[in-house]
Amino acid sequence: MSAGTEKTTRWKCVCAYDGAPFAGWQSQRGGDAIQDIIEARVETIFGRLIRIHASGRTDAGVHARGQVFHFDAPWRHGAEKLRAALGAGLPRAIQIKSVREAPETFHSRFSATGKIYAYHIHLGDPDPFTRPHVWACGRPLDFAAMQAAAAVLRGRHDFRAFSALNGPPRENTVRELRRLDVTRRGARIRVNAEADGFLYKMVRSLVGALAAAGEGKMTPGQIRELLATGKRTPLLPTAPPQGLFLERVLYP
Amino acid sequence: MSAGTEKTTRWKCVCAYDGAPFAGWQSQRGGDAIQDIIEARVETIFGRLIRIHASGRTDAGVHARGQVFHFDAPWRHGAEKLRAALGAGLPRAIQIKSVREAPETFHSRFSATGKIYAYHIHLGDPDPFTRPHVWACGRPLDFAAMQAAAAVLRGRHDFRAFSALNGPPRENTVRELRRLDVTRRGARIRVNAEADGFLYKMVRSLVGALAAAGEGKMTPGQIRELLATGKRTPLLPTAPPQGLFLERVLYP
Repeated sequence: MSAGTEKTTRWKCVCAYDGAPFAGWQSQRGGDAIQDIIEARVETIFGRLIRIHASGRTDAGVHARGQVFHFDAPWRHGAEKLRAALGAGLPRAIQIKSVREAPETFHSRFSATGKIYAYHIHLGDPDPFTRPHVWACGRPLDFAAMQAAAAVLRGRHDFRAFSALNGPPRENTVRELRRLDVTRRGARIRVNAEADGFLYKMVRSLVGALAAAGEGKMTPGQIRELLATGKRTPLLPTAPPQGLFLERVLYP
Repeated sequence: MSAGTEKTTRWKCVCAYDGAPFAGWQSQRGGDAIQDIIEARVETIFGRLIRIHASGRTDAGVHARGQVFHFDAPWRHGAEKLRAALGAGLPRAIQIKSVREAPETFHSRFSATGKIYAYHIHLGDPDPFTRPHVWACGRPLDFAAMQAAAAVLRGRHDFRAFSALNGPPRENTVRELRRLDVTRRGARIRVNAEADGFLYKMVRSLVGALAAAGEGKMTPGQIRELLATGKRTPLLPTAPPQGLFLERVLYP
């Protein structure tokens, strides 16, 4: 590439963020979405508005350790310097972890073959360093019952009842939940979820179901029924956002 | 104790706080010190100003997992309900971990026989969840040199050079540094320090010396000289507050 050419490259970026200070990923009128903040930085670097495209939005309060986005821009100084330039002007709650050149065919959302989320529940009163990143559940949870519920949910199902969809039932809501592990360590319960894709608010609904099972408010039979009917019930809570982390987006 | 009596009890409280949002422990004119916030809560409960007394102040930005304070107040509903009442009205960055009745002779500061601090250094670029609670040092540190420096500092010494004292040299600045361990795990270096007491900014100065040793800027011989002369040099940095945690106050 000779100097002066405006050859545009597709850049694949991995970022981490603490969701607390922001209005979620997706661009907002107020400008305090993570997308807005990163786009403002990109605009500063390149002198014009360039859209960035994420693997998917995360709701207000949800965190990420490995959100992926891409954008197209001319840059002749290498990926590492672009990473540094992007990161230098961002709030400390957003970190650009890596930047790599990607083929033109790469798309953060459409090329993804899966996602991994983690959710943290804390039994009892978490300390001030833990509290911003867990669901302080406050009630005892039967761990074995949670694991039994996870076993029902794992696999290929229509997860319509475990989403917050309002639209017509045309959308394909079948997903392959490859992994749904519940592990415990002291007062901390961690849920790991991996699927080929997740519906809107699906992880938080799955965790809500696990917690309801742990409280003895929902049986494996009722969970099976939710999967079969696709009808959400008020029995199914949505776990709060601050315990949720987008860990990784998977690509071929 | 019969109903209606105003018998005053001494309450020993253990608290944790994230230091980031506050102007340190000690009461400030602006009222945004941790002491001010807890005293305002105590005043709400008891209807009058009651001073609280800590084991010692922590600077702005310094965290605590086990700061201890006491106060005298009449309360007839037991320690656990007092803990809940105190905690209920506090910002989430402050947690009352325990409240216990203490003998009148107990004093958070004067009864203490020692303190334990931890300090966290992060090599490289910490993620947004780690960054608020570490010193992101940014330079490689020679771990063996840090351990050698710690070995020189451990024990009974005059730590005047490792403090930020401005006053006359009358104050007793001899302390018994019972423990100064440097451990490493991945990108994280943790310093554990225990002493019968610490001078003002002593832990952060000790960590500054360890980091200077790790950077090859300070030899064990220079550290010995600082201990011997009691004269601070500009070579000795003060580590930033956000990596420091008051872990525990020790009582007989």
